[in-house]
Amino acid sequence: MAAHFPILQIVGYQNSGKTTFVEKLAGKLDQLGVNVGCLKHHGHGGEPDAFAEGKDSDRFFRAGAAASGVEGAGVFQLTARGEWTLDQLIAAYGVLAVECLLIEGFKHAPYQKVVMVRNEADCRLLKELDGIIAVIYQQSEPKTDVPSFHIEDPGALAFILNHLKEEGVCLNDLS
Amino acid sequence: MAAHFPILQIVGYQNSGKTTFVEKLAGKLDQLGVNVGCLKHHGHGGEPDAFAEGKDSDRFFRAGAAASGVEGAGVFQLTARGEWTLDQLIAAYGVLAVECLLIEGFKHAPYQKVVMVRNEADCRLLKELDGIIAVIYQQSEPKTDVPSFHIEDPGALAFILNHLKEEGVCLNDLS
Repeated sequence: MAAHFPILQIVGYQNSGKTTFVEKLAGKLDQLGVNVGCLKHHGHGGEPDAFAEGKDSDRFFRAGAAASGVEGAGVFQLTARGEWTLDQLIAAYGVLAVECLLIEGFKHAPYQKVVMVRNEADCRLLKELDGIIAVIYQQSEPKTDVPSFHIEDPGALAFILNHLKEEGVCLNDLS
Repeated sequence: MAAHFPILQIVGYQNSGKTTFVEKLAGKLDQLGVNVGCLKHHGHGGEPDAFAEGKDSDRFFRAGAAASGVEGAGVFQLTARGEWTLDQLIAAYGVLAVECLLIEGFKHAPYQKVVMVRNEADCRLLKELDGIIAVIYQQSEPKTDVPSFHIEDPGALAFILNHLKEEGVCLNDLS
């Protein structure tokens, strides 16, 4: 099931700055008029914390619904339990009219990736993973053929926005 | 966009017992081996309460993501903001392998309906709405051609399960 919108993964070990980077990128894409979707892999083991506890949609979920949601004023909240493949999750974003999806984690998935490295040891990811379009480092610049940016370098964001534009994401104000 | 699974709406005014009935039905369908989805219309005006506050997926949503989710151990939690049509929401359940969808509310949507009536005044719904397959009443039995059940009558659940079976829902143990 191929997605009909560009997908970019932000991967790296814990504390490599993935979440903050996805947050920045999502904010910028929103400013540029893009319906951006985000998906995070809860990598600490176990389920995400329950939410909406006691709400009606939570009552349905606890009663046994495989997928339970609520919609009001344009906000849709959904909880679903099952043997989801990443493809299924991506397809859910597709029907919600997402124009671009940023995925934090799922590092072995086959999409283009920004790899965040904290230190030299983390650089082994650069050999392990395919589809790397950029590296964002915290300490010394890694030896690699792909464009690399220090984590404080605003050029990283600019590079990625340009990349997404080339991938077909319509960015209203990006020259 | 036609769903490829049966959809049943549970509609009625506030305090007519919709949520409790959907909860019972979801629990029973789960017991019978059905991947049941539930969708509630938040009919009190405004957005549902925010959830997952401060979590990473909430950070992405607040930063501007139109759709933000997290997946861990088979649990997928998603929040999405937009101009969703009911069809889009239903399609999201479709990609999550739901075999049957129970919708609480959205009373003007074009799916088969169970109408819950508290009293005689509520019975005007029976004239206003199309596609009614059953009525569940709290006081006196309404004058109607469709099967009607008192809210305490277990026959209501049995009737609906049979109906869903006829609509193609595979109920493992229903004789």
